[in-house]
Amino acid sequence: LDYQHVQVPFEITLWIMLASLAKIGFHLYNKLPSVVPESCLLIFVGLIMGGIIYGLNDRSPPVMDSDIFFLYLLPPIVLDAGYFMPSRPFFENIGTILLYAVVGTVWNVFGIGFSLYGICQVRAFRLQDVSLLHNLLFGSLIAAVDPVAVLAVFEEIHVNEKLHILVFGESLLNDAVTVVLYKLFRSFCEMPTIKSVDVFAGVGQFFVVGLGGVLVGLSFGFTAAFTTRFTKDIRVIEPLFVFLYSYLSYLTAEMFHLSGIVAIIACAMGMKRYVEANISLKSHTTVKYFMKMWSSVSDTLIFIFLGVSTIGENHEWNWPYICFTLIFCLVWRALGVLVLTFFVNRFHVNTITSKDQFIIAYGGLRGAICFSLVFLLPDFHRKKLFIAATTVVILFTVFVQGMTIRPLVDLLAVKRKRESAPTVGEQIHIRFLDHLLAGIEDISGHWGQYYWKDKLEYFNSKYLQKILLREYDQPKSSIVLLYEKLERKHAMELAQAGQLGHGPAHPSLLNNDRTVLRDQKLEDTPNPDVLDNMQEILARNLYRIRRTGPAYSRHTLPGDCEPGEHPQELLILRH
Amino acid sequence: LDYQHVQVPFEITLWIMLASLAKIGFHLYNKLPSVVPESCLLIFVGLIMGGIIYGLNDRSPPVMDSDIFFLYLLPPIVLDAGYFMPSRPFFENIGTILLYAVVGTVWNVFGIGFSLYGICQVRAFRLQDVSLLHNLLFGSLIAAVDPVAVLAVFEEIHVNEKLHILVFGESLLNDAVTVVLYKLFRSFCEMPTIKSVDVFAGVGQFFVVGLGGVLVGLSFGFTAAFTTRFTKDIRVIEPLFVFLYSYLSYLTAEMFHLSGIVAIIACAMGMKRYVEANISLKSHTTVKYFMKMWSSVSDTLIFIFLGVSTIGENHEWNWPYICFTLIFCLVWRALGVLVLTFFVNRFHVNTITSKDQFIIAYGGLRGAICFSLVFLLPDFHRKKLFIAATTVVILFTVFVQGMTIRPLVDLLAVKRKRESAPTVGEQIHIRFLDHLLAGIEDISGHWGQYYWKDKLEYFNSKYLQKILLREYDQPKSSIVLLYEKLERKHAMELAQAGQLGHGPAHPSLLNNDRTVLRDQKLEDTPNPDVLDNMQEILARNLYRIRRTGPAYSRHTLPGDCEPGEHPQELLILRH
Repeated sequence: LDYQHVQVPFEITLWIMLASLAKIGFHLYNKLPSVVPESCLLIFVGLIMGGIIYGLNDRSPPVMDSDIFFLYLLPPIVLDAGYFMPSRPFFENIGTILLYAVVGTVWNVFGIGFSLYGICQVRAFRLQDVSLLHNLLFGSLIAAVDPVAVLAVFEEIHVNEKLHILVFGESLLNDAVTVVLYKLFRSFCEMPTIKSVDVFAGVGQFFVVGLGGVLVGLSFGFTAAFTTRFTKDIRVIEPLFVFLYSYLSYLTAEMFHLSGIVAIIACAMGMKRYVEANISLKSHTTVKYFMKMWSSVSDTLIFIFLGVSTIGENHEWNWPYICFTLIFCLVWRALGVLVLTFFVNRFHVNTITSKDQFIIAYGGLRGAICFSLVFLLPDFHRKKLFIAATTVVILFTVFVQGMTIRPLVDLLAVKRKRESAPTVGEQIHIRFLDHLLAGIEDISGHWGQYYWKDKLEYFNSKYLQKILLREYDQPKSSIVLLYEKLERKHAMELAQAGQLGHGPAHPSLLNNDRTVLRDQKLEDTPNPDVLDNMQEILARNLYRIRRTGPAYSRHTLPGDCEPGEHPQELLILRH
Repeated sequence: LDYQHVQVPFEITLWIMLASLAKIGFHLYNKLPSVVPESCLLIFVGLIMGGIIYGLNDRSPPVMDSDIFFLYLLPPIVLDAGYFMPSRPFFENIGTILLYAVVGTVWNVFGIGFSLYGICQVRAFRLQDVSLLHNLLFGSLIAAVDPVAVLAVFEEIHVNEKLHILVFGESLLNDAVTVVLYKLFRSFCEMPTIKSVDVFAGVGQFFVVGLGGVLVGLSFGFTAAFTTRFTKDIRVIEPLFVFLYSYLSYLTAEMFHLSGIVAIIACAMGMKRYVEANISLKSHTTVKYFMKMWSSVSDTLIFIFLGVSTIGENHEWNWPYICFTLIFCLVWRALGVLVLTFFVNRFHVNTITSKDQFIIAYGGLRGAICFSLVFLLPDFHRKKLFIAATTVVILFTVFVQGMTIRPLVDLLAVKRKRESAPTVGEQIHIRFLDHLLAGIEDISGHWGQYYWKDKLEYFNSKYLQKILLREYDQPKSSIVLLYEKLERKHAMELAQAGQLGHGPAHPSLLNNDRTVLRDQKLEDTPNPDVLDNMQEILARNLYRIRRTGPAYSRHTLPGDCEPGEHPQELLILRH
């Protein structure tokens, strides 16, 4: 027997196996996952495992290594989140999300830090040795909402798209703020004196860390898209590039102390549309499937390890500190959401209702990121107290809030997600309205989201697509892609039901085709020729005109741009 | 900048990226891969990389770690090979393959070992300090044909199925022999005296290592199949189990000093048909795609590292020893193939032609397994000579033989692989002949391959399928599956061409359906109802009768088995 030799891969494989089998186990009993979120069950399994290890070895089970968490377990989940991020609601609410993520997190950090410092001043609690800086450092790690925990719970309760993206987007983007504040306070703890220069440098870092992450991510994303232009002869390694480049973007960002989470999300969102167009259908199925599989396994492992790491002797119990941490976490988050939403609602027509506000505040779950950060703290005499407080906050939010949020959503009758995908008709109308709004914004001189979206789309079709797409001369719009997808699905269903008439090969059916075509025009799903026409009409009449026609702007005079194309365009239209 | 923190995953990712980009690079120039095998190009890239590292650092570049090779790079390739192994030609030629793999490898080991020892006795060569045992140890590692190298070359030259499986099957199954002989001679080297008991124990180990590997593999394979019975509600982690269980089988076998390669192949071949039936179509696409991707990357990395490791100062050059190693490798293999094929041809109607024999002997490429084994040798003063000789043999076989085998195959007009997949008609006939031959074997009392295949099939449908398949009441034969696949492919093509009549939803077409059906019976691909009928007829008339009817056998009397079912069966048939 030679166990030493295979120990590392063997144990890793066994842990993953345990995680997967646990997942299967829960799903065998259909009732269980509908009541208790999977994350709770997994932590519970972890607690039992930890108990067994503790009982057998009589010493604390190994805690989750922060390096393993940040380098191997977190990236797959964030990549999955970024790749499948619904980009429309995300960009529609980007302002609100950033407000929650940046201002909200700073508010929480300072709120929790200062009020815990206040608690430490009470002599009866015997906590006077915890300094303000340590409290702020603790606040910076405990304040951030955790994307893994949020995703695990919100995927199961199916709230409406906007609410989901507000909580989930915040949990992803607050990483930049958490990284900056955590590192800032950590370095302050080690400095003898703090100058005001350092504080201002900290504020500047926000932008560097966040925007730097976006830049790193986008550059890797575009490189990935560019690489997949050349994989036509070797389809089998196409999925690899998606994973390799996104992982490199994460690692590179971490290497430069930028926000890895922001980088990998920017990379995934940046590459998605180009990669999808370049790689084969099977490669794309593999990419999607493997991303889901990987993130699901990572997620499972994280929650199990969270449970395992809870058991042990690395806790220092102090009732007042732990209870007040929990209370302040809840109170400051609720206050923050109320105040920020008040400002957000003043500038938006489509306001956030008070029910939504409650769910946003209540959905602020903490998770494995806090846990890993608290173990990364430099050794000082109250570290075990911080670990205990973090563990309690995580377990409380995941168990109590995670388990009650579904009944609450039902009770409050929060607007749910619509079940069906948008029809082709809806898509066309949404597209039409986008162009219309971009035109209105242009005329009124307001540079809103539609204006920027339009500019981006123009830049994309003019430059990016030509560089990044293999067949850039035939860019397919989302409508055509949707139609193709529906058509494929229909074909598969027909084939499965055995109803696929071998029509086109059959002369008698070919004669029928024309009448079928005529009838189909009246039906819901149009045929590709009709759709191409429709597409052509949309593109010519709405988009091109807006682009080449004289836009009202404070900076250019009418007829200033591309005068050569203009009359030609009109001629085509008249024709 | 914090490079230390991310170094390990970053460098691994970069190596994989380099390997993938190199692969893309070769395929951009279509002419290059058609002349030079990819493996040669990759080794060449590795040599350049090694040269650069050597030039910059002024010390030997890192050699490929044997642990990394055996634990992480080799398993994906062998899993891929086992999973996609064409089982019919493999089992049809299993006897010949085993003869080549076991007797042939032993022949080569002792041939090379003893004749090199003879060379060492020549005083002029100054090699008298290399003992017989060391020569045999060296022979045991240099004799084995390498599956990775064989696969890389044979995948590109498309020889006929039988020839391919003979060389490739040998390269896979000789692992058991290599493991035993290598470990035996290594332990002999460390023993003060060798007793004859040890030698006999070594012979016994052959069976333990080989059969043990098969057992470990099959048990993990069946567990994997059993596990996928319960993944219906959680499709996304289905592919994971295929990878996890096969990897565990490999690691477990290695742990008990059994043959990991044999184990993982047995696991893959054992689980394949059950897993395929249990998991969803998309999961299966992901499994296949990822397996190919993973093995392709591993393969690329192995050849690049082989190149990198060649550069450096760990070689001791001795012209006679190295030249004679090369000559003996070629001569003993050629002799072995000639002698063994002579015996094989005496017992087979379908003989191995002399052209095939030449290609079998010439296709005995050495690769990374030898290379890793020679670095695993215990330190002794001539280790560097062995490393040099191994490197030369690998480079010679991969470059010279690998590059000339394609022109030789063309020149000799070796029978090529047929391009098209077998038609449904052919499949039915093959199946029919199988039953016929099983019947003939049964009557003549000869327990040949058809007899055993039939018994296995019976055992499979009676017990294994009920335990391992989720929907065991509708076992689908390969014909039905093939038909479904063709049907799906056809549907996809129709959908892509936009010719999919939305027929069944349309009343006018539904009326046509009957005539279409009638016509289809005359066409090549039958419709599922017709096929089910055909299937039913085949199953009832050929299979069941053979099973329940009184088989002639020396050990049972006629009418001995299952008398209750017999008349009932006849009634149904008469009906």
